[in-house]
Amino acid sequence: MERPIGVIDSGVGGLTVAQELMRQLPNEQLIYLGDTLRCPYGSRTKDEIIQFTWEMVHFLLKKDIKMLVIACNTATAYTLNSLQQQLSIPVIGVIKPGARAAIKTTKNNDIGVIGTEATVSSKAYETALKQIKPEINVQSLACPLFVPMVEKGVLEGEEAKKTVEQSLKSIIKERNMDTLVLGCTHYPLLKGTIQSVIGNDVTIISSSDETAREASAILEVHHLLSTRPRQVQHIFYTTGELDIFKQITKVIFKKTPKHIRKIRL
Amino acid sequence: MERPIGVIDSGVGGLTVAQELMRQLPNEQLIYLGDTLRCPYGSRTKDEIIQFTWEMVHFLLKKDIKMLVIACNTATAYTLNSLQQQLSIPVIGVIKPGARAAIKTTKNNDIGVIGTEATVSSKAYETALKQIKPEINVQSLACPLFVPMVEKGVLEGEEAKKTVEQSLKSIIKERNMDTLVLGCTHYPLLKGTIQSVIGNDVTIISSSDETAREASAILEVHHLLSTRPRQVQHIFYTTGELDIFKQITKVIFKKTPKHIRKIRL
Repeated sequence: MERPIGVIDSGVGGLTVAQELMRQLPNEQLIYLGDTLRCPYGSRTKDEIIQFTWEMVHFLLKKDIKMLVIACNTATAYTLNSLQQQLSIPVIGVIKPGARAAIKTTKNNDIGVIGTEATVSSKAYETALKQIKPEINVQSLACPLFVPMVEKGVLEGEEAKKTVEQSLKSIIKERNMDTLVLGCTHYPLLKGTIQSVIGNDVTIISSSDETAREASAILEVHHLLSTRPRQVQHIFYTTGELDIFKQITKVIFKKTPKHIRKIRL
Repeated sequence: MERPIGVIDSGVGGLTVAQELMRQLPNEQLIYLGDTLRCPYGSRTKDEIIQFTWEMVHFLLKKDIKMLVIACNTATAYTLNSLQQQLSIPVIGVIKPGARAAIKTTKNNDIGVIGTEATVSSKAYETALKQIKPEINVQSLACPLFVPMVEKGVLEGEEAKKTVEQSLKSIIKERNMDTLVLGCTHYPLLKGTIQSVIGNDVTIISSSDETAREASAILEVHHLLSTRPRQVQHIFYTTGELDIFKQITKVIFKKTPKHIRKIRL
């Protein structure tokens, strides 16, 4: 039962999922792999996204992970089904947990989803939402400026607010949504700014928070939940620059994790 | 895939779970059984609770249900583990979904739980919360006046407010909790009154809403989710007075369901 959970992401956005996994499941050890060298996946082709994701999965399978979390909406949109079919361990993505939380939350069935271009054009949220609840109305919007801004460390203040306002203009004007899904794992870092722009009448759903919660339920179904209090050492791998990765983990976690290593896939 | 979900409860409280299942999973058919004749279970002995619950389960298994939802905190506390071990279909209770949602929500790790005497003395929430996150502080409180008040249809107004204020006095004074779990499926009907008494700084978690959401995830893991839009006819069984049951379903659902039948267990 004491095997680690594997978490993969195109870069650093998945660290918000890792952070929630650590907070909500403190008995679990994580092994995180961020493909920062080839990030962002949001504007990659479908074939590239699939190939890169499988390379990350192969790396983590050798670490004897008990569950795989695809902590990237774009990778989830294009690889979740085949990974679930081909791996013998449970595989969880970030899209369905966010969709389920949005369905629980909405009162008027009007849901907004923001994400990368690849996630939005995959229509993965629409499909997930409407499969479960056909009467849901979904308005999706790509916000291509958010990821580069977050990676620069700009999370609040004038510049952040202006960019968020500009980006969300169409979704705010047109719709009557009461729930907005942050369909990209970078976006929870902008949550305060996004909330201030869209107002308090709209409930924001973080797919990162919801994925951690659903991981807990799925682990339990498979009798894989670690219920013994213990000190765990999480390990973070990056394919990109070690110093930049360390800097960003420090911004997100408020301290630099002990075990960060650079690898080549 | 088109088999129904079975929902059992000691009486009518579980209708709040049924309502959320219908709202969050509109493609799913429910068969509900409320043991109103022998309700409430909250002050029954452990052996009685186990025996009564198994009688309900036997009735529903004959209806070829694909999943069992124990929509009663007291029955969940005393029968979930053995039902999960002995049935071949997935079984979900109301305690762990509420616990997981509370862990996701709390920022200061200080959680309050209110429920029946049997649920509180079972320590099922404490166990569930601390198994997943050992550093959680839990303050539990039995509110024996709430169920009879709800069953009388008193949900708001002076009488409701007074009873809720009196009952919650100790938990409000002593603790610094930021999250309160409604650990009884009757209590969501008092949510407005409870929120007005405890104030807006405390987030209320309804185990009913959370159970419906987790049922969606568990059905998906087992490839049992109905994803085809369809008209479904839910069926409600009661062991008690048909007229009273009809009245209460009308209060909860705002209309009387078509198929309500009285049975003997």
